[in-house]
Amino acid sequence: MKVLLVFAHPEQRSLNAALRDVAIKELETQGHEVRVSDLYADSWKPHVDRADFPLLTQDARFIPVAASKDAFAADSLTEDVRAEIEKLLWADILILQFPLWWFSMPAILKGWVDRVFAYGFAYGVGEHSDKRWGDRYGEGTLAGRRAMLIVTAGGWEEHYAARGVNGPIDDLLFPINHGILYYPGYDVLPPFVVYRVDRLDEADFEPIARHLRERMRTLATTPPIPYRQQNGGDYLIPSMQLRPDLGDPGATGVALHVDGGEASRAKRDEVAYG
Amino acid sequence: MKVLLVFAHPEQRSLNAALRDVAIKELETQGHEVRVSDLYADSWKPHVDRADFPLLTQDARFIPVAASKDAFAADSLTEDVRAEIEKLLWADILILQFPLWWFSMPAILKGWVDRVFAYGFAYGVGEHSDKRWGDRYGEGTLAGRRAMLIVTAGGWEEHYAARGVNGPIDDLLFPINHGILYYPGYDVLPPFVVYRVDRLDEADFEPIARHLRERMRTLATTPPIPYRQQNGGDYLIPSMQLRPDLGDPGATGVALHVDGGEASRAKRDEVAYG
Repeated sequence: MKVLLVFAHPEQRSLNAALRDVAIKELETQGHEVRVSDLYADSWKPHVDRADFPLLTQDARFIPVAASKDAFAADSLTEDVRAEIEKLLWADILILQFPLWWFSMPAILKGWVDRVFAYGFAYGVGEHSDKRWGDRYGEGTLAGRRAMLIVTAGGWEEHYAARGVNGPIDDLLFPINHGILYYPGYDVLPPFVVYRVDRLDEADFEPIARHLRERMRTLATTPPIPYRQQNGGDYLIPSMQLRPDLGDPGATGVALHVDGGEASRAKRDEVAYG
Repeated sequence: MKVLLVFAHPEQRSLNAALRDVAIKELETQGHEVRVSDLYADSWKPHVDRADFPLLTQDARFIPVAASKDAFAADSLTEDVRAEIEKLLWADILILQFPLWWFSMPAILKGWVDRVFAYGFAYGVGEHSDKRWGDRYGEGTLAGRRAMLIVTAGGWEEHYAARGVNGPIDDLLFPINHGILYYPGYDVLPPFVVYRVDRLDEADFEPIARHLRERMRTLATTPPIPYRQQNGGDYLIPSMQLRPDLGDPGATGVALHVDGGEASRAKRDEVAYG
């Protein structure tokens, strides 16, 4: 298989970099091809602005969605963005690896998403009608491929548990797993999350590395998070409400969009955290 | 009152900029002082890197949390970051305004948070013991102040409703409202969200502007989202689990951390969306 790992930590001597190297080595040992986008090392331009759209004339009003649509259609996105799109189309599996900063990804990785996930490529894809509402949430350009997160967090695992004060890690990562990865079509594997990383010592590293190697060996076989396909019959079109007979009656929240809800969440926790 | 508005849209002729100006004008009409951090216009440096920490020697390993702690303690953060901290300490009310890109804030605003919310200022504050776990989630440097989001979204409001395919807007914004704003102490007001912004025409603008002016007039009186204070007795310490007798039995998800849960959510929707 072909694996693209997008890495967003500024220090090559970090725990994140060590885990990245463990993952790459295991993948190559298994015979996979690996490419890495090391955003800090590559001096990735972190934010969307007019410079991303060379066809935009100087006095034209800059509407990011429209500019992205026009540029993708005209194949006039900047070279760095086109290179990332080419890598995404090359890879069977996408891994995003980052430290959890303020309960989300570092700005440089958010900017990678904002810039690379162009209109016509990652959104604005497919037919909008009374039968289907675009190719998104399980369908789209990247359907048939897999994605997963490798995340390090400073906080305690308990604080990210189902009733922990930070909110459940699955809910905090939902805007990424469901909103960024499942949206353009990826099957999303349970994340690999390491907690309390500021307190780790060398003895803690090997068990974590062993677990990560195991996850790298099972990329093709680990069941993805069973998010519900938008056009698979579970949602009313065009209101995109989950059908009233699905999910616990009256229940709300992001877990509704996982087929099997809480039971499924518990099972995924087993896969993710062993 | 003193209001800081942090603005993250690249185009001065955008709907966002027009709404920003409506908000500022109304606030000034009410006699408030307003300062604006216009991140694109100010060429805000969007990502954390070594350059943020001038005291870090060239061969030192860069550990972002430790570097942030040391720099804040030594008052050696870069000038642009110190200016933002000064503004946050000046303001009674913080408004973050941005277009929702990939279900979160644009990279440039995430980088503002990553860089400005320093250790010792926005996190890593207060005593950690068996009685309290730091000053966070309702306590901390910014306690006693208020914050709110002004957000524009391309999608339909229904798609962000309690059972909508994108996930409820409150849950999608939880990592920001609870994780970024409530964490260092802000009382967080319900967000002002405008939907389907790519389809708005001029006739749509005035009702939205009127609603926004109303929100600006009621900044001091709108009830905040009743998130539960970490050290107020609702959580077990140090596991930080919500006490078993609170919230619906067996319930999980981010709504657990709002006192009153679903009922409260419905009431807030009334405030936010009229």
